Amino acid sequence: MQDQTMHPYRTHSCSALRATDAGTTARLSGWVHSKRDHGGLLFIDLRDETGITQIVIPAGAPALALAENTRVESVITVTGDVVEREEGTRNPDLATGDIEVRAREFVVQSAAAVLPFQVAGHENYPEDLRLRYRYIDLRRDSVHSNMLLRARVIQSMRRRMTDLNFIELQTPILTASSPEGARDFLVPARMHPGKFYALPQAPQQFKQLAMVAGFDRYFQIAPCFRDEASRADRSPGEFYQLDFEMAFATQDEVFATLENVMSGLFTEFGNGRTVSQAPFERIPYARAMKVYGSDKPDLRNPLLISDVTEEFTNSGFGLFARIAADGGEVRAIPAPGAGDKPRAFFDKLNNWARDAGAGGLGYIIFAEEGGKGPIAKNLEADRVNAIRTKLGLNAGDAVFFAAGKGDTVAKFSGQVRTRIAEELDLIEKNAFRFCWITDFPMYELNEETGRIDFSHNPFSMPQGGLEALNTKDPLEITAFQYDIVCNGIELSSGAIRNHLPEVMIRAFEIAGYPESEVEARFGGMLNAFRYGAPPHGGSAPGVDRIVMLLADEPNIREVILFPLNQQGEDLMMGAPATVPPERLKELSLALDLPKPKPTVKKD
Amino acid sequence: MQDQTMHPYRTHSCSALRATDAGTTARLSGWVHSKRDHGGLLFIDLRDETGITQIVIPAGAPALALAENTRVESVITVTGDVVEREEGTRNPDLATGDIEVRAREFVVQSAAAVLPFQVAGHENYPEDLRLRYRYIDLRRDSVHSNMLLRARVIQSMRRRMTDLNFIELQTPILTASSPEGARDFLVPARMHPGKFYALPQAPQQFKQLAMVAGFDRYFQIAPCFRDEASRADRSPGEFYQLDFEMAFATQDEVFATLENVMSGLFTEFGNGRTVSQAPFERIPYARAMKVYGSDKPDLRNPLLISDVTEEFTNSGFGLFARIAADGGEVRAIPAPGAGDKPRAFFDKLNNWARDAGAGGLGYIIFAEEGGKGPIAKNLEADRVNAIRTKLGLNAGDAVFFAAGKGDTVAKFSGQVRTRIAEELDLIEKNAFRFCWITDFPMYELNEETGRIDFSHNPFSMPQGGLEALNTKDPLEITAFQYDIVCNGIELSSGAIRNHLPEVMIRAFEIAGYPESEVEARFGGMLNAFRYGAPPHGGSAPGVDRIVMLLADEPNIREVILFPLNQQGEDLMMGAPATVPPERLKELSLALDLPKPKPTVKKD
Repeated sequence: MQDQTMHPYRTHSCSALRATDAGTTARLSGWVHSKRDHGGLLFIDLRDETGITQIVIPAGAPALALAENTRVESVITVTGDVVEREEGTRNPDLATGDIEVRAREFVVQSAAAVLPFQVAGHENYPEDLRLRYRYIDLRRDSVHSNMLLRARVIQSMRRRMTDLNFIELQTPILTASSPEGARDFLVPARMHPGKFYALPQAPQQFKQLAMVAGFDRYFQIAPCFRDEASRADRSPGEFYQLDFEMAFATQDEVFATLENVMSGLFTEFGNGRTVSQAPFERIPYARAMKVYGSDKPDLRNPLLISDVTEEFTNSGFGLFARIAADGGEVRAIPAPGAGDKPRAFFDKLNNWARDAGAGGLGYIIFAEEGGKGPIAKNLEADRVNAIRTKLGLNAGDAVFFAAGKGDTVAKFSGQVRTRIAEELDLIEKNAFRFCWITDFPMYELNEETGRIDFSHNPFSMPQGGLEALNTKDPLEITAFQYDIVCNGIELSSGAIRNHLPEVMIRAFEIAGYPESEVEARFGGMLNAFRYGAPPHGGSAPGVDRIVMLLADEPNIREVILFPLNQQGEDLMMGAPATVPPERLKELSLALDLPKPKPTVKKD
Repeated sequence: MQDQTMHPYRTHSCSALRATDAGTTARLSGWVHSKRDHGGLLFIDLRDETGITQIVIPAGAPALALAENTRVESVITVTGDVVEREEGTRNPDLATGDIEVRAREFVVQSAAAVLPFQVAGHENYPEDLRLRYRYIDLRRDSVHSNMLLRARVIQSMRRRMTDLNFIELQTPILTASSPEGARDFLVPARMHPGKFYALPQAPQQFKQLAMVAGFDRYFQIAPCFRDEASRADRSPGEFYQLDFEMAFATQDEVFATLENVMSGLFTEFGNGRTVSQAPFERIPYARAMKVYGSDKPDLRNPLLISDVTEEFTNSGFGLFARIAADGGEVRAIPAPGAGDKPRAFFDKLNNWARDAGAGGLGYIIFAEEGGKGPIAKNLEADRVNAIRTKLGLNAGDAVFFAAGKGDTVAKFSGQVRTRIAEELDLIEKNAFRFCWITDFPMYELNEETGRIDFSHNPFSMPQGGLEALNTKDPLEITAFQYDIVCNGIELSSGAIRNHLPEVMIRAFEIAGYPESEVEARFGGMLNAFRYGAPPHGGSAPGVDRIVMLLADEPNIREVILFPLNQQGEDLMMGAPATVPPERLKELSLALDLPKPKPTVKKD
């Protein structure tokens, strides 16, 4: 029988007791983390969310048999004497390592069955097993810590946004199909036979309508839903974003806001890692493609790509000279200090490039006496020297080349830049490097159809407004459209929105949509803009990705409490599941299942 | 052309300028709240979220024609001189009432069409019109203020919960059907033909699994979804609750937690209204039904119901004597000071009672010389006096009676209690009176089937545990199940949960469910409890209802940003909507519409 004058479960948490508590009586509750039998004595590490306390069941104690039969991960309540440990048996790694609790009472609150996997220790288990028993998996140190980190990160985000006078509003989850372009989840509307709600891909339209409604600064830790295939950095089904929008704001103000929040957040939770301070570098899209070979440049990588087309034009290195003559480009990726690498280093990179679909990876090694290697053999010495000078390289360095047309060479040179930096171990460690990619093109040429398409968000404001749309080559028009990138990972797109119906109609017209179709598809938004809409803009960084970066986890499911697996299944709760026919009937639906594949009868 | 050295939209908000700013240049942006033409001069009240500033367009100004043609609710940017208003034209009701801005530049950022209804003023408009143009409706003062209040209330809830060491976790929205009992919304799973996710009616199972996972104190401002008909206090579709759960907690600790949060919150946002302080009154269910005639008693109502069955047993008032003899009860509801009411007062209440399905509403008026009225004529004087003494009434007071059986008389006497207090204007004004209703019965007798059903949540811990289930009359067993009530409105149920599989299986057995069915329906939870589950409990007060109370709004749609209408439609975005056949096809679904009602052909 328990002492009834004490709290029935605990007087202290499992991290609370210290040597100064010795001599007192304590009651603790938690999980049996581990048990050790030491010649009649039983030691239990008792764990709760805050820590671990060592329990001792003395030899001959009435509770000993019960305790011995209690499996790890059972929940117990122990009442006993706090005793200072003897010198030499203290555990400096444990906050409670100076004491132990000698059990007088031992109550099993919940007996554990044999576990599908261990909570203690750091062994790896198959993900589906972990997700099926997520409630056990979540007890494990790393994933439990990730969830606490996530909670603190989101709390800090909210505080930072409200400190900047943003207010959090809840936008609808049962709503209409959105024009974002990905696939919506649909929800049958029982009261409206044949009709469906959609889950929001993002609260994009609602946050813009909130601006029209006169809210000055909106934000929301917003659940978003996309019926898309899973990726390592994208959970199937649902995800969260720090959705925000600002009225009467310029692009610079949106940037300043998010820089404030991000640099603060990453400093707070970065565990001493270096964090870009405001203002973050702003890199126009065109320059990003040239210099980094990517619109998601990793600024921890110090290498910059140079255009050396000129240096190869009409040169003695025929392959690149022909590419240059043919309208192609040659990009040079520096490899500082690579000059002393063995031939195998260059061969390996050449093979990698072939595997990646390029013809190969030409290079020049710079020595005191000039260039070395196959290209340098054929390229005039003054041109070799010009390249070295252009890239600021010295003897002992090398340079790699990517040659080809337009986007292809840009993207490949970006891959080379990453690969070289990895090979040479040049990527800055323990740093979060942010940048903005700005001035995205409004339109792009669809190579297949020969038509002009929107290249990103059709609802962004074109730079130069209606005049630009009416007078400029569409492919030359940029938009007030931007991405925020950290360590080569895009955290979010954003834009100053197009709040002017006549500009929106003209913008769609250029992309081949007649006004009637724009009105039919986006009439709700267009109408709202006809009753007084403020200029506005915003962004929506992904919460899960931010936590992934801070937790240094490459798999998004490590930072989500109860994630779906890669097949979009909840193995723990058994979702999705079939439903009784009467449920379908009341939703005015019938199954229309794909025909089963014919099976060959074996006899 | 605008001055390019200033911010393009605003140097100040519309509530910022003061007399001390006179002589400076300011740029403001906002909505044209109203326009007044004063003999060539044009006055504009310019509004943003923070307030209003008076703009003057002087006679002869170049912008005058443009300003005159700009409709109210257009968005404009005005640059001009801050001028102190002349004595006598100042507006003390306006923070900026000492100044006005004389416009030099006037830019229309977004011209408004003719409005469907007015933003300025307090006229009422049909709800469907308001919801169709919610982005205009939300500019109106009362509904805009409600949204800001809601945002601040939720922010304060979060702060209060985290101050109490709760952490906020996001539970899944795409999940499995839950056993809460209401109807789930279903979401077809494209990748799993014939299968469906369900939207959570509440994160009940997930929060309990979070406890099993070792999270000590969980909360969430949680979106919840029920496919139920709309009511004034329940929005169709989605709603939010302050969902929380505590491990190793007693019922008293759950109460103390919520008392702390609620009394703090209602004091913070109560605008001086009186708020119950902790501990809130705890009223066992059985007593609540006797004394208040309701399990949602409004404690602002000072009237207490008494059982006077004894006083009528074998009495001269035959009707009640027969009811008492027949096993019924007689309840007395005091009406202090009602003795001087005219006969019409009593007749009106009698008619109301007949309309409510009762036989009538008997009463006694107490005078110095004894009881008066039809009942007193037949009831012995010492019995009349005993009733007066029992209720503590004096001459000039009256008492009403409800008689009948069990729950029927209890509930009717509760209605009488409310009605009398309203008629006599006894309900306390400007107060939030909280209480807990505790000790709900675990089971009830289904009058139709004669079987034992769960009366509330089957997952609550029965008081006395397994022993009570095995030894007591099921109808005598109470549960650790409670409601929190404010001003007669149930904000939430809650419970100490049943975390013991063997107790749960026995509890369901009593209600007629074999173990196999319990395992089939709730196997996920049961299994989790087999791997070490802590005792735990919690509650989940409705956020929308709390904001309704604080905003003093009887209609829940007044405190939701973009609510569905009572038919579950979003008139603004056009949801729900039909979807193209190919969308259904990829979801492996076909419509199975109800047959149209036959129409009679007219010729």
